[in-house]
Amino acid sequence: MNDTFLKACRGEKTDYTPVWFMRQAGRYLPEYQAIRGKISFLELCKRPELCTEVTLQPIDIFGFDAAILFSDILIAMEAMGSPLEFHEGRGPVFPEPIRSQAAVDKLIVPDPNETMPFVMETIKLLRKELKVPLIGFSGAPFTLATYLIEGGSSKVFLNTKRMAFQEPEMYHALLSKITECTSLYLQAQARAGAQALQIFDSWAGIWAPCDFERFALPYVQSIISDLRKMTDVPIIYFANNGSTLIEHSCTAGADVLGLDWRSNIGDAIKRVGNHAVQGNIDPIALFLPKAELEQRIKTLLEDAKDAKGHIFNLGHGIVPQTPPDQARIAVDAVHRFSGR
Amino acid sequence: MNDTFLKACRGEKTDYTPVWFMRQAGRYLPEYQAIRGKISFLELCKRPELCTEVTLQPIDIFGFDAAILFSDILIAMEAMGSPLEFHEGRGPVFPEPIRSQAAVDKLIVPDPNETMPFVMETIKLLRKELKVPLIGFSGAPFTLATYLIEGGSSKVFLNTKRMAFQEPEMYHALLSKITECTSLYLQAQARAGAQALQIFDSWAGIWAPCDFERFALPYVQSIISDLRKMTDVPIIYFANNGSTLIEHSCTAGADVLGLDWRSNIGDAIKRVGNHAVQGNIDPIALFLPKAELEQRIKTLLEDAKDAKGHIFNLGHGIVPQTPPDQARIAVDAVHRFSGR
Repeated sequence: MNDTFLKACRGEKTDYTPVWFMRQAGRYLPEYQAIRGKISFLELCKRPELCTEVTLQPIDIFGFDAAILFSDILIAMEAMGSPLEFHEGRGPVFPEPIRSQAAVDKLIVPDPNETMPFVMETIKLLRKELKVPLIGFSGAPFTLATYLIEGGSSKVFLNTKRMAFQEPEMYHALLSKITECTSLYLQAQARAGAQALQIFDSWAGIWAPCDFERFALPYVQSIISDLRKMTDVPIIYFANNGSTLIEHSCTAGADVLGLDWRSNIGDAIKRVGNHAVQGNIDPIALFLPKAELEQRIKTLLEDAKDAKGHIFNLGHGIVPQTPPDQARIAVDAVHRFSGR
Repeated sequence: MNDTFLKACRGEKTDYTPVWFMRQAGRYLPEYQAIRGKISFLELCKRPELCTEVTLQPIDIFGFDAAILFSDILIAMEAMGSPLEFHEGRGPVFPEPIRSQAAVDKLIVPDPNETMPFVMETIKLLRKELKVPLIGFSGAPFTLATYLIEGGSSKVFLNTKRMAFQEPEMYHALLSKITECTSLYLQAQARAGAQALQIFDSWAGIWAPCDFERFALPYVQSIISDLRKMTDVPIIYFANNGSTLIEHSCTAGADVLGLDWRSNIGDAIKRVGNHAVQGNIDPIALFLPKAELEQRIKTLLEDAKDAKGHIFNLGHGIVPQTPPDQARIAVDAVHRFSGR
């Protein structure tokens, strides 16, 4: 068992810098495309043997230091009773957006083992195969709520902010329900064998700090507080595009703060106090010529040298067009330059 | 002539805090919609009498302290020879994306007075009517380049970054040409009578600081350096989603830094040195109930009290769904709370 990733999460000394990539199991890999060619994305998420296979692919191919469960943050929203569709090239769609108290009331807080048994089954299968730690994950309640309220992705999140600003009780009722669901879901993942948990707050960066503090952060704090009562697995909180939210994010209760690529990691590390950090190279920097990519990784590792713990990652998910060879160059460079 | 806005730009003492809104002439106004119902967006941009009318609408209705020329940043790219279309609900489209040296070579650096006479004519008409200063504007070269390279808007700007990373000479040739065009365009606006100039770097926030410094900032510096030789009108640089780029943006040479809503304005002011600031309430905060909106404006004005100069604005353009009455509440609150 290679526990370098877990040690870095806990701020313990490691022999080298562990590395994994957000969306490392995914469309940039021909091996993944071969499976996706035969089955829809949503169906794939519900087939434990196939989820296990695609989760293992990048570990076997590149030697990442952690695996992340192949799934989607919205699976749990479907389990709450909101029909979910994935349209090719358009992303997720909730055809029945949640914009009334009646719609909020209709959502259920599901038993994750009953409604998402395939996730727990995948975790158990993966733990039998993996020689590196397995990361479970969920969306953060606010980010999940945006999809339900907007009915999918959005540019300015008008419906979400309008609900928060004009109908705060309805917003709170919805967020509380999602928080309860997410809390139980992550607990179930930990019980099934997930060795770390990441909470993705993909849209955190649409809030001004004063609103993030009211409309997003408390729900994350609640989930992490619940988790701490039943497990000591490391918890990673990733508030995407959250450079102005770092001080607030430090109060979420996580062990590790994920950083998007907009911050210089050295500057961010000065602001995170006692947290380890994860990140943060621009995913599209993987398109740099080899020598420049390696130099950039070297610089990033040097900039991160004062971190309490550093897990190398991209600042956001790897893009589908990335040549796999470039991912290999990056993983090897992180290992080589950090002393493995 | 109400010169409060110009004084604030220059960091001089003002009797109250001047206010204008990005996109204040636009779709949220029924008076604007009445005109747009009869003519396409692109056609409207080329009709000086109508541009003058829609520019004046929000000044007359709400009493803003500055007017901004009604136009679009992409007009100048069309003038460079790249066909431009606006598709309802999809935004701008360049059907012939610029992705080769041959395509870069084909672009021209136009004489703005010959290719965009309607803009200079609008400025002259407006100066006869206005009792507040008139702001001219352009896009920043990098932001303009993204539209040409991507062929429109984008999510991850893969083509743009890939050109910068893999074909830096082609990228530089394109950006240099856009810079020359933009520089001449802004100079022509100043000569026609624009009393301040804003450079919109709408997509600056997709860069890591180390890349912003190489691939976006130098072109803005070049334009401002050129402008300084021929005019002393205040220059505003707005690097949207640029909270990690503030120190770099301070080297652009502008008088005023525009701030998006993600930063607390007090925190940002500590980082801008000798610059005035413009911003930065979340445009969707205009949907807050009246008392809360007023309180938020009051807090923002207090947070900004140590600024060298403060021009109140939104942190991004006003959204089309905004009730005009809410805009009025905001403008009145800025004036009232700041002592007018």
